[in-house]
Amino acid sequence: MTLKLYYASGACSFVPHSMLELAGATFEPMLVKLHKNEQNSPEYRAINPRGQVPALVHEGQVITQILALVTYIDGLFPENAFIPREPLARARFVEALAWMNNTVHPTFTHIFMPHKFTDDEAAQKAIQAHARAQYPALLDELQERVRAAHAGGHDWLGGAHCGPLDTYALTLTRWGSLAGIDPAQRALLWTHVQRTAQVPAVARAIERERLQLNLYRPATESAP
Amino acid sequence: MTLKLYYASGACSFVPHSMLELAGATFEPMLVKLHKNEQNSPEYRAINPRGQVPALVHEGQVITQILALVTYIDGLFPENAFIPREPLARARFVEALAWMNNTVHPTFTHIFMPHKFTDDEAAQKAIQAHARAQYPALLDELQERVRAAHAGGHDWLGGAHCGPLDTYALTLTRWGSLAGIDPAQRALLWTHVQRTAQVPAVARAIERERLQLNLYRPATESAP
Repeated sequence: MTLKLYYASGACSFVPHSMLELAGATFEPMLVKLHKNEQNSPEYRAINPRGQVPALVHEGQVITQILALVTYIDGLFPENAFIPREPLARARFVEALAWMNNTVHPTFTHIFMPHKFTDDEAAQKAIQAHARAQYPALLDELQERVRAAHAGGHDWLGGAHCGPLDTYALTLTRWGSLAGIDPAQRALLWTHVQRTAQVPAVARAIERERLQLNLYRPATESAP
Repeated sequence: MTLKLYYASGACSFVPHSMLELAGATFEPMLVKLHKNEQNSPEYRAINPRGQVPALVHEGQVITQILALVTYIDGLFPENAFIPREPLARARFVEALAWMNNTVHPTFTHIFMPHKFTDDEAAQKAIQAHARAQYPALLDELQERVRAAHAGGHDWLGGAHCGPLDTYALTLTRWGSLAGIDPAQRALLWTHVQRTAQVPAVARAIERERLQLNLYRPATESAP
């Protein structure tokens, strides 16, 4: 099985990256350097015309979109049961993953890349400030999900094992720290993120991406 | 089986709404009137604290998020095989649905509800104009997906049967017409949307929601 994962350091591609490590998969990690704009190079555009990471290549097929990669990797490694099989638990897993992907993630995009939404610099600042004001409530909700998992007798957001919901939560919390939100403000979430980072397979993905988990700097707290 | 679907006329809840009709499900359609702000009423907030449609209630459980509803309804009616079972086809289905949900859908949100992203009126206009300029390329891509399905010998975006990808494409094209984009500009997509609307089960959902398929008015073409 030849699997190639195109990823960027610290991007949401961390979710499939750590999932492949958790599965014990043999794969080629293909680093796409965003700061060198490699995602828009002709070589990468030939793989993913949208110029986005992640992209998974398997048997000549290119698969994009976090939710599709999680679905596909789950299918390749059914013994890991990354996605619960019981219908309600499965729907809850997809509900949480879709919410992270279509709500929390794009709110961060409005903070980090407001130029995606307008060329007007004043409008970019307004967008950024608005999203920055919304992000803490989303982290609160992430933390509530951790609390609910524990209350339900689960150590991890997806149930018995560390999986995509935990590594997405890690990514979104880390992004929050980049936006000036001290992760230590939410002790339960921060503990969960640190536990996730210590799972050996996740730690391997963190090491390969050379990620610093906490990017919060008090001096820049007010800047998004 | 007591199934309740909370939906709003013309919203993305049309996707699970028409899916339940396609499955021949017995369900209670619960209309949430957005123009009366019913989504923010205490009664509805008790069902979905986010104040969003759709919400599906089954055996006391409330499920939200289009991708989760599609997953859950697919599980309730496996004989319809709404989501392909073969791993690659399954990933492709999720990839397309996630793209509609996290890319096309929010681009329309920036056109239709720019106040979600800033309180500044000038910034709202800038956001709206930027998204309005991006939307045609997304409709082009939707049309290319129809072309690719046909080239692959499929009548529908998800394969042999009309399903969530087709009704989401209908919704997104209809929203485009509301944003001043003449659907007839993309003959293949528009024909596909009209064919989708004529499937008897989909037609029942359209009738219940009292939807007009084409909201394009030449005089307002330049306004988003």
